[in-house]
Amino acid sequence: MSAGALMAGEMAEQPARLAALVARRKEVAREVRPLLVGAAGAVVAARGSSDHAATTGRYLLEMAMRRPVAAASPSILSLYGVDVDFSGYLVVGASQSGRTPEIADYVVQAGRRGARTIAITNDATSPLAQAAQAVVELGAGEERAVPATKTVTAEMVAFALVAASLEDVVGDAAWEALAAQAAAALADPGPMDALADWLRGASRLVLVARGPMSGAAAETALKLEETSSLLATAFSANDLRHGPIALASSTIQVLALVHPGPAAAGVLELCDELVARGADVRVLGPVPGAAAGWDAAAPEQLAPVLAVIRGQQLAHALALRVGADPDRPAGLTKVTAT
Amino acid sequence: MSAGALMAGEMAEQPARLAALVARRKEVAREVRPLLVGAAGAVVAARGSSDHAATTGRYLLEMAMRRPVAAASPSILSLYGVDVDFSGYLVVGASQSGRTPEIADYVVQAGRRGARTIAITNDATSPLAQAAQAVVELGAGEERAVPATKTVTAEMVAFALVAASLEDVVGDAAWEALAAQAAAALADPGPMDALADWLRGASRLVLVARGPMSGAAAETALKLEETSSLLATAFSANDLRHGPIALASSTIQVLALVHPGPAAAGVLELCDELVARGADVRVLGPVPGAAAGWDAAAPEQLAPVLAVIRGQQLAHALALRVGADPDRPAGLTKVTAT
Repeated sequence: MSAGALMAGEMAEQPARLAALVARRKEVAREVRPLLVGAAGAVVAARGSSDHAATTGRYLLEMAMRRPVAAASPSILSLYGVDVDFSGYLVVGASQSGRTPEIADYVVQAGRRGARTIAITNDATSPLAQAAQAVVELGAGEERAVPATKTVTAEMVAFALVAASLEDVVGDAAWEALAAQAAAALADPGPMDALADWLRGASRLVLVARGPMSGAAAETALKLEETSSLLATAFSANDLRHGPIALASSTIQVLALVHPGPAAAGVLELCDELVARGADVRVLGPVPGAAAGWDAAAPEQLAPVLAVIRGQQLAHALALRVGADPDRPAGLTKVTAT
Repeated sequence: MSAGALMAGEMAEQPARLAALVARRKEVAREVRPLLVGAAGAVVAARGSSDHAATTGRYLLEMAMRRPVAAASPSILSLYGVDVDFSGYLVVGASQSGRTPEIADYVVQAGRRGARTIAITNDATSPLAQAAQAVVELGAGEERAVPATKTVTAEMVAFALVAASLEDVVGDAAWEALAAQAAAALADPGPMDALADWLRGASRLVLVARGPMSGAAAETALKLEETSSLLATAFSANDLRHGPIALASSTIQVLALVHPGPAAAGVLELCDELVARGADVRVLGPVPGAAAGWDAAAPEQLAPVLAVIRGQQLAHALALRVGADPDRPAGLTKVTAT
């Protein structure tokens, strides 16, 4: 099999896998909604790529629940043995395999301490699924390439489904358009080939985004690191402005992920500042002056899914350009146990 | 003035500044304790170096309050205008200047929506201080060097004071030992000079820690990036294990920050794995086989303060070795407005 064929094949499955997941949205809403109603807050537990889906998920959950949403600090339970009181809280654990012990254990412990619990996983028989009161099964099929692709976009959609269970601000038309929007991005690799040419030989890439898009920036950074050993770091636009902007000198390349919406203007202003400092900045997304990204009509809740697909294309294209096999990155195995 | 004199002078102030802050611990406890008792959870809002102090602070607050503690997503209020219900929550905003508009605004908005609010700031007349129900004033004096030093360690101590207001698990002897422990680290620059020699010419540094020490790793990464333009990234030990461990090849240097306690064994095991993969790993902290770090007798709540001081020494020493002026990093100004 040629280099990168596994990853490319799994990327290509995404429109159909996401369509099948979205088609289950009313059933998912019925199951999870009672766990969200009246919750005092929520905690999301995940690691690695799942944690990037969870980053977008935290924004969507806080916007939907209108209560604060935290990222879990599993060590507080697992290492320090603190008896945290989760009564009134929703805890959502996300793990592709459902076999990351730390995440499954967190959901078990939180449930014992009063939490309402949801598992987002590709394996409904896994310890994570068994630990939770409700399960959102990804239905993404087995993932054989080492870099996670279809399971990450499915996790992002799963978080969006959970958030939408309280009030479906996305709407049927937008849910049903997602698969075609994903397919359109996959059918149009040209802009990502051009970005891969731009990144060939780069020493470091800074990814910038804000709001729900932050998870897509973090996931794209990881995918580039995994497949091409490019040093890539994702920043919230305001965190970058607050300190490491010094690094955005002429020697550093910056890629901003931007979708039309309330967060766009600030990120585009930051890009202008970075250009003025001599940085080499590209913008990806359906906004004026940007590389062709994805469908501008996608709602902000789902645009990160499309941005992640663009990031996968970019990582795949760059890996091939630098002579790496994206299916089997050097030194990386598909470890899920921690 | 010679290069780095400002930063070195402000680093040297830390023992006295921290002693003065610690001496106010009973007064701080009296003021903030009523805001913590019975809270449903907490949200911590900060940017840049303050956010690294807040990372350690989130661990200490969750351990003390035994309720989940979140990092704020300010854009949900400021850009998306979501009417989040903060009733029953504690919100802690941390900003050296108290003039980071996004953080002050977050505390204002959260207060209006039902939160109990605390400001941690060096300026008791700032908008942040005025917005909050209680203020922990750092008393760190004016900070003139661009890289924040004494205000960051003071913020970490302030978070520890807030957490200890519920139950003082640190104890008088340990509080009162902190200043001397800080002074002892500052008086012993040799080990950090050796680490700076090790890092000279490095292309990238990965910092690793877990639990409350995570904030010190993030702060040390930023300090090295700011002062020496070394590409430094901090990872939680388990996040590193979960994916980017592939990057820890023979070309990458790794510095682990470890204090004796429940989190130590896992980080040291990860270091062994990284060494087995050919990485160049150093451990800093009072554990066997490590570079001399800081006093092993420090409680885990305060050890991150000592680790941050070691990181400052390292950043200062490395900057001078690479011909940079740590007081005025290229392209960086002391911007606090976002």
